[in-house]
Amino acid sequence: MITNPTLILDAEKCRSNIDMMARKAKLHNLVFRPHFKTHQSLEIGRLFRDAGVDKITVSSLEMAEYFSTEWNDITVAFPVNILEISTINRIAEKICLNLLVESSETLRYLQQHVCFELGIFIKIDVGYHRTGLSPDAIPEMDQILRIIDESSHLSFKGFLTHAGHTYSCRSREAILDIHQKTREILLGLKSHYLNRYPDLILSIGDTPSCSIADDFSGIDEIRPGNFVFYDLMQLQIGSCSPDQIAVAMACPVVAVHPDRNELVIYGGSVHFSKERLEDEQDGTIYGRVAAFENGKWGEPIPGMHVKGLSQEHGIVSVPEIMKANFKPGDILYVLPVHSCLTRHASRVTRHASLIDDSIHPQ
Amino acid sequence: MITNPTLILDAEKCRSNIDMMARKAKLHNLVFRPHFKTHQSLEIGRLFRDAGVDKITVSSLEMAEYFSTEWNDITVAFPVNILEISTINRIAEKICLNLLVESSETLRYLQQHVCFELGIFIKIDVGYHRTGLSPDAIPEMDQILRIIDESSHLSFKGFLTHAGHTYSCRSREAILDIHQKTREILLGLKSHYLNRYPDLILSIGDTPSCSIADDFSGIDEIRPGNFVFYDLMQLQIGSCSPDQIAVAMACPVVAVHPDRNELVIYGGSVHFSKERLEDEQDGTIYGRVAAFENGKWGEPIPGMHVKGLSQEHGIVSVPEIMKANFKPGDILYVLPVHSCLTRHASRVTRHASLIDDSIHPQ
Repeated sequence: MITNPTLILDAEKCRSNIDMMARKAKLHNLVFRPHFKTHQSLEIGRLFRDAGVDKITVSSLEMAEYFSTEWNDITVAFPVNILEISTINRIAEKICLNLLVESSETLRYLQQHVCFELGIFIKIDVGYHRTGLSPDAIPEMDQILRIIDESSHLSFKGFLTHAGHTYSCRSREAILDIHQKTREILLGLKSHYLNRYPDLILSIGDTPSCSIADDFSGIDEIRPGNFVFYDLMQLQIGSCSPDQIAVAMACPVVAVHPDRNELVIYGGSVHFSKERLEDEQDGTIYGRVAAFENGKWGEPIPGMHVKGLSQEHGIVSVPEIMKANFKPGDILYVLPVHSCLTRHASRVTRHASLIDDSIHPQ
Repeated sequence: MITNPTLILDAEKCRSNIDMMARKAKLHNLVFRPHFKTHQSLEIGRLFRDAGVDKITVSSLEMAEYFSTEWNDITVAFPVNILEISTINRIAEKICLNLLVESSETLRYLQQHVCFELGIFIKIDVGYHRTGLSPDAIPEMDQILRIIDESSHLSFKGFLTHAGHTYSCRSREAILDIHQKTREILLGLKSHYLNRYPDLILSIGDTPSCSIADDFSGIDEIRPGNFVFYDLMQLQIGSCSPDQIAVAMACPVVAVHPDRNELVIYGGSVHFSKERLEDEQDGTIYGRVAAFENGKWGEPIPGMHVKGLSQEHGIVSVPEIMKANFKPGDILYVLPVHSCLTRHASRVTRHASLIDDSIHPQ
C-alpha cells in the first residue's frame, strides 16, 4: 500500500522502450551502450541484459563501481576527475573501463598514475558547449593521441559527443538538424584519423536524436539513457508519446482547496527535483497528473499539473469540473518533468499491480 | 581529502547562527522550536540542545521518527497525511507529537484512529496560499475545535502559520510588512479564542521574518530552520550577511575552457538541487564560488558563479582576470542557492580543518 511519495515503474512500458531502442540499434548496425544514470538500478539493468546489451555508460565513477558487480564494459561519460585516481585504478583492475578526456594535462596525469588498461575517448563539443574539444582543435587531439600512443596502459577508443542542445529543441526538424550536424562533424574526424586508427569508434548519446533520427551512417555507437523512462520534457521535445512514460510519482493528497482550484500533495522538491517546464498554456509546471484506471496510468489530465513545489509539498491545479472529485487520502499519479533527477531524488519501489514479478528495482 | 562533491559545514558559523536565534527568542520571550528539515542531522541537532533547545519542528513523519530517538517534543509542520496513521500512532506512543490540521474531515479521521495523545495546531493561511484555513474561516475552526474538545486523545495547541511569501521579498521593509500583517491576523484569532483556550500558542516560522523582525509581541513560538546554514537565497532576500553562510559544496574542477571564460566542475543538479536565483547582473545562477583561505571560505567572488547544471556537471563562469588561475584537480567552494535542498541532495560530511572535533555530522 502506498502511504507516501513513491516512484512507480510500469515495467511493461519500460521493457517496450528498451526493446524499441535495442531494435533500432540493431537495424542501424550500432553498438548499443545505454546510459544507466537515469535508472541507477541493477534490477532495471537486467532488463537491458535481456535485450542483448553487454556494454553500458554511466556518469560517475561511483556509478561505475556500483554496476561493476554485474557489468564488465563501462564508459564513464564525464570528464576524468584526477582526484579520483585510486577509484579509477580499483575499477580498471576489475573490468574494461573507458574514460573521457579533453585535455593533454589530464591525460598526462592518467598516463603517470594508471596501473591498468584504460580505454580513452576524446570528448568533442558539437555545439552544446558544456565540455569537449572543438572539432577543429586538431593540434590538441594530436597531442592527446601522442600521449596515448606512448603509454602502455592507455588505448584510443574514438570520439564521443553528447549533443545536449537537442534538449532545447521543440520540433523534430530542429533535432534532426542538430543530429545531422553532429554526424558531419564526427565523420570529418573519422575520415581524418581512420588511417591511423582503423578501429576508432564514433559515439553519440542524446535521447532526442536517438529516438527520432533514422540516419546513423558512419556512427558506431549510441548511448541514450533517458528513453528507458522518458518524461514530460521528452514529450515536449517530441522524443516520445505519452504512453511511453514509464515512471510516475504516486503522491497522497493532504489538503483540498476548491476555492482556488488547488490540491496539496505530499510530494515536493525532495521527491521530484526542482526541474521545471515552461508550457504555453499552463505556465511553469513541475509535473502532470495522469489518469489512472485498472492499476495503470494513462495520459496526462488537461489542466491538472503541479504548479508549485516546496521541500515536501506540491501544489496541484485542478480543472473546475473535477474539483469536487478529490479528498485527503487519495493518491495522484504524477508524470515527472525529468525522470533522471526524479529517479535520483526518490527511489523506484515495487508496486505489485504495476511491476512485473520478475523485477524488484532497488 | 576531498575527491568528489562534498557539502562542508563551517561549525563556527553554524553555532553562531544558532546562538543568535536562541538569544533573540529569549530576548522576546519566545519558545524556540527550530525546524530541523534544513540539516536533518542528529549531530547538528545536538548543537541546538547545547543552546538550550528542547522542542523541534520537522516536515515529515519520517523525520519525526528519525529525531524521536533524541527529541521528545516534535511538531510536524505539514498537513496530516491520513495514510500514515500507523506511523503517527507509533511516534505518538513514544513522544509528545503535534500535528497540523486544516479540515474537519482529516481531524475526524484522526479522532477515530489515534490511540495516543496528540497536540493539534490549526494551520492558518496568512497570505502564502499554500495550505491552511483563511483567518476568517471561523465556522470551520469552531467545527475543528468541537471535534478536538470531544476527543479524549486530542488537545488544541494553537494557531500555526508559515509566511512563506517572505521568500519573494527583496527588501527588509517588504519582509517586515508581511511579518506585521501575520502578527495582526494571528493576534485577531488569539483575542477571539483566548477566553476558551487560555494556553493557546501562536506559532510563526519563516527564516526571513525571524531573522529581521524585532516586534514579536503576542507571538509565543518561532520555528525558523534555514538560518542554521543560511544560503544565497537568504542573502538576496536580506536575511543574512555573506559571512553567516555556514555550508559550501566543495567541487573538483574537471575541465577548463578559457576560450569562453568557463570551468566545468564535478557538482551537478544531483548535488546542488536545481534551485536557482535570478540576479540582475549575472542572470540565472545555481551557486556562487567563494574565496577560500586558511581552511575557511569567505565572500563570494564577483562574477564567479554556477551558470548551468546537468546531472553531475556544473558550468562555472570565471572573470577574465582569473581565468588562468584554475586547473583540473583544483577544488572550488560553492555557496548554495538553497541550503535545505542542497543538504538533502548531498550529505554534510566531516572536514577536519572546518568542523570542530566535537561534531561529526552524519
